[in-house]
Amino acid sequence: MPTQTRFDQRRARTRAALITAAQKLLAERRTNVPVLEITQLADVGLGSFYNHFTDKDELFETAVDDALEHFGSILDKLSDHDDPAVVFAQSLRLTVRLCRSEPELTRVLLHRGLDITVADRGLVPRARRDIEAGIAAGRFRSTDSRIAVPIVAGGALALAALLDTDPVRNAGNVADSFAVDMLCMLGLPESDAVEICGLDLPNVDDLLTPTSSTESPTSPPPGPLLSD
Amino acid sequence: MPTQTRFDQRRARTRAALITAAQKLLAERRTNVPVLEITQLADVGLGSFYNHFTDKDELFETAVDDALEHFGSILDKLSDHDDPAVVFAQSLRLTVRLCRSEPELTRVLLHRGLDITVADRGLVPRARRDIEAGIAAGRFRSTDSRIAVPIVAGGALALAALLDTDPVRNAGNVADSFAVDMLCMLGLPESDAVEICGLDLPNVDDLLTPTSSTESPTSPPPGPLLSD
Repeated sequence: MPTQTRFDQRRARTRAALITAAQKLLAERRTNVPVLEITQLADVGLGSFYNHFTDKDELFETAVDDALEHFGSILDKLSDHDDPAVVFAQSLRLTVRLCRSEPELTRVLLHRGLDITVADRGLVPRARRDIEAGIAAGRFRSTDSRIAVPIVAGGALALAALLDTDPVRNAGNVADSFAVDMLCMLGLPESDAVEICGLDLPNVDDLLTPTSSTESPTSPPPGPLLSD
Repeated sequence: MPTQTRFDQRRARTRAALITAAQKLLAERRTNVPVLEITQLADVGLGSFYNHFTDKDELFETAVDDALEHFGSILDKLSDHDDPAVVFAQSLRLTVRLCRSEPELTRVLLHRGLDITVADRGLVPRARRDIEAGIAAGRFRSTDSRIAVPIVAGGALALAALLDTDPVRNAGNVADSFAVDMLCMLGLPESDAVEICGLDLPNVDDLLTPTSSTESPTSPPPGPLLSD
């Protein structure tokens, strides 16, 4: 029925507007605002908030999940290298760097905590896919991915907490050392792991803003993940 | 002044009684009780609870910290092997097994979350000590322990969450696979890591009850960590 479809579409638009508003607030580091301010920013009625989310925490967690799914899809576009070890290391190095460029996203993630290590979307299923691809290709030792994936996810979270509590620590060094450790865990000799984790990284900023391709070359550089 | 000393002693006794009561409740899986029941179990006044703890969560977290410190001291007694890789692997294998034998302790730990990965007592500083001993002895590759320790701690927490959500999964297999992964991360060849993580483990139950050495040989076997 067309009426039902219009209702569904409006409902989906309201939800998307709330999530976009939450991502803006995350980017501006203003998660401590009343629900009314979020609904005003989203240009939806206060009451409609509660048709979609039980509270602010649930909205911000959903906003972070969506942002991580978006970031994961960016990583997917970058993963065109033949060597699964290079692909996996690149994802880890970019992900841990994200903790520094997106501190509020990271804080919501840390608040959510260990649940994320068993999430079925975002970065965890992509880590599983990459590890299993490396094992299938004989590039990684045949370890149990049901154990290795939580180690990677839990380790990344613990390092995110470390970076959150120590704002002057160099995130790039932490990220690259983490990636070397994980490649060694997966059976690579240390010298190979160090070499792979010293390769140039693609400039993710160019990919984070979906509209950037339509912008003129003289426009300001795209902002961080959540500000588009 | 003697009066002050007696006051201090009584204060310390009250605190210890509350922590012991909390550990009993953890062992009996009854953390969802009112504060009054805790103070009655500890045989202290209700008001004195708030001289020591702001709420139940803080008491249970302290109780878990104390239990982990106690468990760490047990691991210390076991660490008489010449090979630091064997010592470290043994600690990891016993610690992850603890998640299955002490599910309530694990749940409080998970509730506390990633803060524990930077704790200055309990198991994290012992992991740092063991990793640095292995590096100093040339048994582990010279990785940055400031990165490796959070990976170990975050990985162990993520696996604790996994075991908590999947009560039929074999904790011994998870623990041993985790220890193999960590030894490989620290530079051991997989075959060495597998061999070390297949060694017999000491019977920790014998060591968990501080009074066990004074008990008669016919007394029932000591209970789990928190029931003494």
